[in-house]
Amino acid sequence: MEIKVLQDILSANDGIARRNQERLDKHGILTINVMASPGAGKTSLILQTISNLRQEARIAVIEGDIASRLDADKVHKQGVEVVQINTAGGCHLDANMTESALNNLPLEDIDLLLIENVGNLICPAEFTLGEHKKVMLLSLPEGDDKPHKYPLMFSESDVVLVNKIDLLPYLEFNMSAFQKAVSGLNPEVKIFQVSCKTGEGLEGWLSWLQNEIKKMKSRPGS
Amino acid sequence: MEIKVLQDILSANDGIARRNQERLDKHGILTINVMASPGAGKTSLILQTISNLRQEARIAVIEGDIASRLDADKVHKQGVEVVQINTAGGCHLDANMTESALNNLPLEDIDLLLIENVGNLICPAEFTLGEHKKVMLLSLPEGDDKPHKYPLMFSESDVVLVNKIDLLPYLEFNMSAFQKAVSGLNPEVKIFQVSCKTGEGLEGWLSWLQNEIKKMKSRPGS
Repeated sequence: MEIKVLQDILSANDGIARRNQERLDKHGILTINVMASPGAGKTSLILQTISNLRQEARIAVIEGDIASRLDADKVHKQGVEVVQINTAGGCHLDANMTESALNNLPLEDIDLLLIENVGNLICPAEFTLGEHKKVMLLSLPEGDDKPHKYPLMFSESDVVLVNKIDLLPYLEFNMSAFQKAVSGLNPEVKIFQVSCKTGEGLEGWLSWLQNEIKKMKSRPGS
Repeated sequence: MEIKVLQDILSANDGIARRNQERLDKHGILTINVMASPGAGKTSLILQTISNLRQEARIAVIEGDIASRLDADKVHKQGVEVVQINTAGGCHLDANMTESALNNLPLEDIDLLLIENVGNLICPAEFTLGEHKKVMLLSLPEGDDKPHKYPLMFSESDVVLVNKIDLLPYLEFNMSAFQKAVSGLNPEVKIFQVSCKTGEGLEGWLSWLQNEIKKMKSRPGS
């Protein structure tokens, strides 16, 4: 019964997500769903991305949170368009919330849309929003065993950013065991080691993103 | 509609939770629901607690995970009773899963039951299991703004353990702002600063727990 309800919800969500993606395609807006645990560095990644790519791409942000608009305020200070979604207790964004946010963004003037999902390694992986790519962060302090414990998030993501590598000297984190576990779940995944605090290692992420923006712009119909 | 379904689920859950708590009361088993983000240190706290209190209390553990039994294996190595619950994608434990686990534990031989919830700062706070106390960990790398962003978890918890204080020199974490935010949401809460890795600061937590076990044993009917 509960499972039936969930299936109905997921299937309705997928329909709205397809509609969102068509709309984003029409405007040539590369859209990235950024997911992670609380405090893994989603907002820091978005701020670093804005700071590094703002000269070459028009960037907008959708901020998802249960409560507060702390992150939206941080992004707004960078002078980019931002829409806050408060889920009122809900543990993930969905396609319907995303559609409402799109209605409040100047779609003609955006090349790259970054969606910061609610801090949670579980449900965000189940609900597609209409994004083109799913990106997750795993911060080093969370530990190298997380792919075994949250497999869906790792298998659904196109990119895994291993964040907070500046803390590596102070932690026990087996990077090769982690990479092996992620690749086992998801052979196509790209893994980048970064520190959103110091900026270390961000080149790989930024050049992947630039390339995806380029591909989006050169699609027929864009 | 979705909200109505959720209300029905929560109300059914509360009924089973009350039944669980009566059963635990009858056996005089102090039961603690341990909640936190992925990788914040729930299993490490449980292992430290076992290692420090095993001479004076008979301890058992329920391990909640979406997938894998990595944590249950770590606990089992300590020679205490452990039951693994795999939620198959579910982002929290519920009272029904807890009841099944209780059916597989020797309730006559337990003084302290530690329940490790699924790694998630959101939904576990909504579903009571029949526990006597809710305890959460917030690890320093998650950041001092989390009470504003996940207020229900902080307001529902009887104890907040600030874990990984061994990393304090390498992070920007405003402890007094954090404590003020937590106390604002929850004036009765106890806050302990600990490192489950080094053992630093655990005395406060252990003596709180010993006192609660004592209170449980001295209750009429236990």
